Amino acid sequence: MSSPSPRPWPIFSSEKPETLHLFQPRWDTVENPRTGARMRRLVLETPNWVNVVARMESGGYLMVLQYRFGSAQVTAEIPGGVIDPGEDPLAAARRELREETGCEATRWVDLGSVEPNPAFHDNRCHHFLADGARRVGDLELDPGEDIVVEEWSEERLVSAVLEGEVDHALVLSALSRVLDLRRDLDGAGA
Amino acid sequence: MSSPSPRPWPIFSSEKPETLHLFQPRWDTVENPRTGARMRRLVLETPNWVNVVARMESGGYLMVLQYRFGSAQVTAEIPGGVIDPGEDPLAAARRELREETGCEATRWVDLGSVEPNPAFHDNRCHHFLADGARRVGDLELDPGEDIVVEEWSEERLVSAVLEGEVDHALVLSALSRVLDLRRDLDGAGA
Repeated sequence: MSSPSPRPWPIFSSEKPETLHLFQPRWDTVENPRTGARMRRLVLETPNWVNVVARMESGGYLMVLQYRFGSAQVTAEIPGGVIDPGEDPLAAARRELREETGCEATRWVDLGSVEPNPAFHDNRCHHFLADGARRVGDLELDPGEDIVVEEWSEERLVSAVLEGEVDHALVLSALSRVLDLRRDLDGAGA
Repeated sequence: MSSPSPRPWPIFSSEKPETLHLFQPRWDTVENPRTGARMRRLVLETPNWVNVVARMESGGYLMVLQYRFGSAQVTAEIPGGVIDPGEDPLAAARRELREETGCEATRWVDLGSVEPNPAFHDNRCHHFLADGARRVGDLELDPGEDIVVEEWSEERLVSAVLEGEVDHALVLSALSRVLDLRRDLDGAGA
């Protein structure tokens, strides 16, 4: 009796080339259960990530401006980063908020987690809301970081999302759990 | 006179190792304008992507179930894929919708585009709404695909997002432009 498609694809071999900084590439040889065809598919073994929607006591949102090497542009994002080995996602969220913005929060809400891209990443990104945030010290940047922190009103943040100024998918995923990001669908067609 | 931080990081050299299936890795040697420190940073040169929120004449949403090699799980996503070289994003959206679901739509709305991850990708993902979709033929799958298409009510889709059953960040980013995905923030803390 055959199981309903789509089924998991059996893996016949796994090869690991040189580590790529943030990732460990892995080549799996898999078989398509629908066709029997065998093929090599890439997996990027990736540590889990975390990001934080941080709302100040004043109601403003903390935004992190930094130069990004992939897009070669300065982006406006929410605080976040890599979860250390063995580190709890909430602990990582508190640490990244403190290091990147100098802030602590009085109330934390777990917003769940997402898959950054299940086609090739094996990791998850955890989203948190940090409410009642306030400045408690300076940023703690390492030599590989250059960050400017800004506080944006909810109106400015939503407007920046709708206009594409804030456009990192993982930032949008986190924000969509806190803010209504729907567009006007009755405007001009594509 | 120094410009305000963060500034772009000068690139001193670029090396390209073996192509990785979906990506061309590139090592850039860059300098942090804040500290003067030089370091190697990874860029994955990546073609642009597209995905489609497809709403049937009945009001239901088209969901694509497939096995994903990164997460090693069957996911529920909206239709989408890679934009071919020289292909228009809307043309790619129409093509992916047709190939992956057998459907065409009567109204297309450009929902804008996002950066999948500007930290290391140099590409964008274009989001579209395909409204008034209807089945016009069979799926057109290549040997490397195994897909099941389902039609979900809006209620089921939103509930699946809130419960984490639909959790691909690029899918959530597209859906957040059409549906209200906010969570109950007054529930239990983290």
